[in-house]
Amino acid sequence: MSKNRNLQVGVVGLGFIGPAHIEGIRRQGVEVHGIAEFTPELAREKAGQLNIPVAYSCYEEMLKDPAIDIVHICSPNFLHFPQAKQALLAGKHVVCEKPLTITSAEARELVELAKTKQLVNAINFNLRFYPVNFEARHMVNKDDFGKVLIVQGSYLQDWLLYPTDWNWRLDLDQGGSLRAVADIGSHWIDLVMFITGLKVDEVFADLKTFYPIRKKPVSRVETFSNKEQSVAIDYEDKQIETEDYGSILFRFENGARGIFSVSQMSAGRKNRLFYEIDGAKSAVSWDSEHPNDLWVGHRDRMNELLVKDPSLMSDEGKAVSSYPGGHAEGFPDTFKQLQKKVYAYILKNDFSVEPDFPTFTDGYISLQIEEAILKSSQTCSWVKIYE
Amino acid sequence: MSKNRNLQVGVVGLGFIGPAHIEGIRRQGVEVHGIAEFTPELAREKAGQLNIPVAYSCYEEMLKDPAIDIVHICSPNFLHFPQAKQALLAGKHVVCEKPLTITSAEARELVELAKTKQLVNAINFNLRFYPVNFEARHMVNKDDFGKVLIVQGSYLQDWLLYPTDWNWRLDLDQGGSLRAVADIGSHWIDLVMFITGLKVDEVFADLKTFYPIRKKPVSRVETFSNKEQSVAIDYEDKQIETEDYGSILFRFENGARGIFSVSQMSAGRKNRLFYEIDGAKSAVSWDSEHPNDLWVGHRDRMNELLVKDPSLMSDEGKAVSSYPGGHAEGFPDTFKQLQKKVYAYILKNDFSVEPDFPTFTDGYISLQIEEAILKSSQTCSWVKIYE
Amino acid sequence: MSKNRNLQVGVVGLGFIGPAHIEGIRRQGVEVHGIAEFTPELAREKAGQLNIPVAYSCYEEMLKDPAIDIVHICSPNFLHFPQAKQALLAGKHVVCEKPLTITSAEARELVELAKTKQLVNAINFNLRFYPVNFEARHMVNKDDFGKVLIVQGSYLQDWLLYPTDWNWRLDLDQGGSLRAVADIGSHWIDLVMFITGLKVDEVFADLKTFYPIRKKPVSRVETFSNKEQSVAIDYEDKQIETEDYGSILFRFENGARGIFSVSQMSAGRKNRLFYEIDGAKSAVSWDSEHPNDLWVGHRDRMNELLVKDPSLMSDEGKAVSSYPGGHAEGFPDTFKQLQKKVYAYILKNDFSVEPDFPTFTDGYISLQIEEAILKSSQTCSWVKIYE
Amino acid sequence: MSKNRNLQVGVVGLGFIGPAHIEGIRRQGVEVHGIAEFTPELAREKAGQLNIPVAYSCYEEMLKDPAIDIVHICSPNFLHFPQAKQALLAGKHVVCEKPLTITSAEARELVELAKTKQLVNAINFNLRFYPVNFEARHMVNKDDFGKVLIVQGSYLQDWLLYPTDWNWRLDLDQGGSLRAVADIGSHWIDLVMFITGLKVDEVFADLKTFYPIRKKPVSRVETFSNKEQSVAIDYEDKQIETEDYGSILFRFENGARGIFSVSQMSAGRKNRLFYEIDGAKSAVSWDSEHPNDLWVGHRDRMNELLVKDPSLMSDEGKAVSSYPGGHAEGFPDTFKQLQKKVYAYILKNDFSVEPDFPTFTDGYISLQIEEAILKSSQTCSWVKIYE
Repeated sequence: MSKNRNLQVGVVGLGFIGPAHIEGIRRQGVEVHGIAEFTPELAREKAGQLNIPVAYSCYEEMLKDPAIDIVHICSPNFLHFPQAKQALLAGKHVVCEKPLTITSAEARELVELAKTKQLVNAINFNLRFYPVNFEARHMVNKDDFGKVLIVQGSYLQDWLLYPTDWNWRLDLDQGGSLRAVADIGSHWIDLVMFITGLKVDEVFADLKTFYPIRKKPVSRVETFSNKEQSVAIDYEDKQIETEDYGSILFRFENGARGIFSVSQMSAGRKNRLFYEIDGAKSAVSWDSEHPNDLWVGHRDRMNELLVKDPSLMSDEGKAVSSYPGGHAEGFPDTFKQLQKKVYAYILKNDFSVEPDFPTFTDGYISLQIEEAILKSSQTCSWVKIYE
Repeated sequence: MSKNRNLQVGVVGLGFIGPAHIEGIRRQGVEVHGIAEFTPELAREKAGQLNIPVAYSCYEEMLKDPAIDIVHICSPNFLHFPQAKQALLAGKHVVCEKPLTITSAEARELVELAKTKQLVNAINFNLRFYPVNFEARHMVNKDDFGKVLIVQGSYLQDWLLYPTDWNWRLDLDQGGSLRAVADIGSHWIDLVMFITGLKVDEVFADLKTFYPIRKKPVSRVETFSNKEQSVAIDYEDKQIETEDYGSILFRFENGARGIFSVSQMSAGRKNRLFYEIDGAKSAVSWDSEHPNDLWVGHRDRMNELLVKDPSLMSDEGKAVSSYPGGHAEGFPDTFKQLQKKVYAYILKNDFSVEPDFPTFTDGYISLQIEEAILKSSQTCSWVKIYE
Repeated sequence: MSKNRNLQVGVVGLGFIGPAHIEGIRRQGVEVHGIAEFTPELAREKAGQLNIPVAYSCYEEMLKDPAIDIVHICSPNFLHFPQAKQALLAGKHVVCEKPLTITSAEARELVELAKTKQLVNAINFNLRFYPVNFEARHMVNKDDFGKVLIVQGSYLQDWLLYPTDWNWRLDLDQGGSLRAVADIGSHWIDLVMFITGLKVDEVFADLKTFYPIRKKPVSRVETFSNKEQSVAIDYEDKQIETEDYGSILFRFENGARGIFSVSQMSAGRKNRLFYEIDGAKSAVSWDSEHPNDLWVGHRDRMNELLVKDPSLMSDEGKAVSSYPGGHAEGFPDTFKQLQKKVYAYILKNDFSVEPDFPTFTDGYISLQIEEAILKSSQTCSWVKIYE
Repeated sequence: MSKNRNLQVGVVGLGFIGPAHIEGIRRQGVEVHGIAEFTPELAREKAGQLNIPVAYSCYEEMLKDPAIDIVHICSPNFLHFPQAKQALLAGKHVVCEKPLTITSAEARELVELAKTKQLVNAINFNLRFYPVNFEARHMVNKDDFGKVLIVQGSYLQDWLLYPTDWNWRLDLDQGGSLRAVADIGSHWIDLVMFITGLKVDEVFADLKTFYPIRKKPVSRVETFSNKEQSVAIDYEDKQIETEDYGSILFRFENGARGIFSVSQMSAGRKNRLFYEIDGAKSAVSWDSEHPNDLWVGHRDRMNELLVKDPSLMSDEGKAVSSYPGGHAEGFPDTFKQLQKKVYAYILKNDFSVEPDFPTFTDGYISLQIEEAILKSSQTCSWVKIYE
């Protein structure tokens, strides 16, 4: 009998990202026992659509259900903190969407609470789990890569290009005081720290809101779904206080330099995270719109191009690949791979072992960096992270 | 309550492709009730690994279980015919891996049996279900594409490059008298017929076995796993009667010309299906190693590049996309999308409607073409399909 | 003083390709002494545009000019044979555009005449001279590439896509009885023979004229310039007897298989020659629309991607590169590199040495293969080349 | 007779870039009359190699030669100012390599001198002259592109990756106090200003010297040739005061944001300039290692990919294309196209017309921005350009 058999999962929040969690969970033969939503009606509707056995009347009910071992938090950003805190207090392991919280102080509270409660805590920095990103980490840490010198990249989308594009993330109260940086920039920052193993020492940022006024539709809009609106809708003017775009410079602890742009207004870029990491001997680069390819740059011999292939990869890369070479894995697969490591860790039941997945601590570091980015943008100066 | 709720699936064959079926089934909230394998022990072992409730002692036992609505046949090729026939006779709907059977006569028998029994029958030509392939079909059928003139392409792999590479597919008795053509070429042929809507009229083929003798390891080897062998193993010489490579020319019913190469010995190509379809006004091309991109060629304006994005696609393309633009979908997603259509069709329970997924008839046509290819190769002449 | 100083070149034919020759010649500091055209007026007009000292009243006058060492023949195909013959008889070295002649019998006559006359003879298979093609040849001939097994590819253009597209090449009398195969297919065939060093043993072809009637404008049209026509023009119907498209299969002397498609009706492909050469250990592929990149495929390690870089290339590749790594070289550079080798050979004045550029012999072989292709297409059977 | 006939050009400096100028000049049928170098011997040697009629004993002699209409200055950076000044004073038109001078004050002096003397002055920002860059400019300035919002990019090379790499540009006295920024960064800055038509308002920079000590070979090394050194050589330690790398942020006059990284230590990037310009409606991006491709991004329809093709381009793009669609043009072609415009302008002899090529004014602006970059890097603050 498989070790995963008895894990039972509850999911709160069934917008864009909740169903992606559910697919991943199910692929491993782990049961999604029940879900919770803003209202009991919505929970029942989503449970019906997604074939979930239980629709809880509210989140609190889910937390009281002893059948639930793990809670996946997929709600809007401002709910992550209270919901994660409640879950930990209820003795549940937690997989939380990013950002972990709105402030780093909240994040620190969660880190400490999880530690006290001895509960497994994961944050869904899922992009690490494209197999070639594990492979990139393996390569960057080998001697023949050399010291990391430069970390470059961008995370670009176009779904908020027009002043008529709307989503709850544009609302300061629901999304927090950073938007592009928090929603997608945080993925890039986490990913390059994961791959290089380097800490960010200080940041300099220039954030820009191209549309200080946007037009909000009167009815509710799910993330990404705005682009498929076809019927005429009513709008109201809304002041926007979060950034559409950011330029961010980094100085890493080892002296390496970083440069990163993040945008939700780059026409034609649907969801493109790009990085290039330049070492003293070699380089790697990756583009999330072609996620099975890894470019490896060399000075003295031909560059290399890895098409994801377990037979050509290290044990680390293999461990997060499910399909043979040339069989493309995609965005949904990253959820499965992250969860697989989290669940295996829970079942192993030895929490003295360093987790091999992103934890609340990563979420906390991420928020510290984001707060420094915001401060830098406001003060036009370099801001240290750990002060 | 979702319509999928009560469907119960059984899977036979848990080599490389069976688990891919299972992931797809589960992602839809449909239960994999039980599995069967060569031996009861193997079934139990796989059921444990994959968290499957029931491990049948044999395939026959699965067919007798009234809980099972649908059987997925994922066994080696030579078992497809007897297992599909048994399943239909037992009143189960069937999703069969390709090739449907070894001979077209067998395939025709299954087509007729399924019709008599009024059972849903699908063949897993899953590659159709990359969203941009549906979009390509949509484009090719629009007036501004023009009449299809040329269909070009290849399906290339490298996992049988060395004479020491071995797999059951190399064995004439298990795999059939065509190998590269049947295993992967059939996908290409089905895909271009699906997209263009054209029937193949005649074929000309030149098949080649570069290694008439290969070295077979004494122990069993799963598909694709040979490439990860690291320890020294014992071999025995085996005569190879199936092709490592094929060049195939097509003449389509509308006068269009086709050209296709298929190889399992092309170094560096892990699993690359490529097509280019040239119409009288525009062209499309696609490469399965970058499955979210579709190239659209024009004469009088810039070429276009679609990055899979439901907001930019037709209803047909949208229907098989689960994630927003730029969120890569991959090989495992194609299983889910195909099954989703099959299961919806079963639940709708109106078999007078033309199925919107590949059926045994497609498997039969595929075998007719393959037999013509083999005959052409033996006679060095053009061979008509329908005679 | 440089050895090239005293060479004086004459060019006949100043359509699309003549000026490309002239640029190449001049880049080496070699003087284009004079040109000839259909009429004295046209010669003067072109000489004025191109800053050429002498406009001969006719080709014969050019041949009589003792100042001329070398003649470049850039006229329409049907003139290559008489003009090359005259030039050799006049004691001039010859660089001839391809195809060398209309028939292989004519080509053989030229090969023999050049030999008798002890004159340097080159044919402008310029595509060999992209630096990475020399590098591909170097790689293919190394032990770690293994025996060549498969040669795949295509040469696709779209400039004759519409039935209203016209060019002298469509005219049987001026272009010869093969069109796409002779004009561009011949480049591909020469290139893969150059890289692999293999001779073609037999061919099978399926040629297709999609538009048996085309509309010819009443006024004259230069090659490629049709696509820029904007004004309405008068047309007359013309019967087309040459192929718009061809599928061609090859069997090489070592048992390798070849497959090639050639088309002037593939929308979006402006001028794309593609090859992939699969060896028993590695593979190479190249695309003329990205001519500085060479893909190298491997089974047991990552694929490689060479961006043209003399510092990473063999002596052979370096010798035909003028610019450092990453400084793209293009179509016009291939003319310069070919001519550089031809002129150096002339100046070295030792004709016992094997030429390191394509000669009339290559032009002759090319025509033999083309004639076999035509015959195969007519007889629907494999045709041996050397019989 | 062509208008270019009588122009006579002199070239000073025959290192890496001088011969590239010469090829371009010759391709137009313009004569390179003579050259000058550091020593008469070197001039004679280079003249012999390059088939140049006259080798001047010194630069002053060239300037005295009344046959010379135009001087191309291809010397090391520190000589640009004195040589350009002398040339203007001698009444010669000047085409100068970039950077125009070491300081912006010198550049302003040259701008004024050229104006006073009524002489044509060009700076070799040749990268503008890839045809698709002219096309990008055309697109960005059309209404359907929208206001420019974001300008992103990088210019990366790897030829100074190792501490043993050496070149005169590393020497503060010869190259100036900026290196990567001045040598290659200046190309990027000029190019994006050219395409967008926007002025830079202020900059923020973080420059980094990864190797404060490099090893200088005792013998002389030409640009880029270090990578081909194979024999052991003697080194001496040299302190490096110029940057290996720079991160630069821009604020443009219209509120647009810019972000740019420049590096000579990025393994595998041979000479890669990349930009992406995001407008309120569409976007364009380009990569100099694939210089014939232009990507055009859209939000509401498929992205586009232009393969350089005069028949698909605007008059501006066509004017700098010499070859038909799909016939790749490269780095050397940009020299030809720039010179073609300069020479035509000279021959037209109406200096009241706005030049359609980069002039000393562009070189001056470039230096102003570079000085602001240096100052920003030293002060860690945003620095305005025009103060």
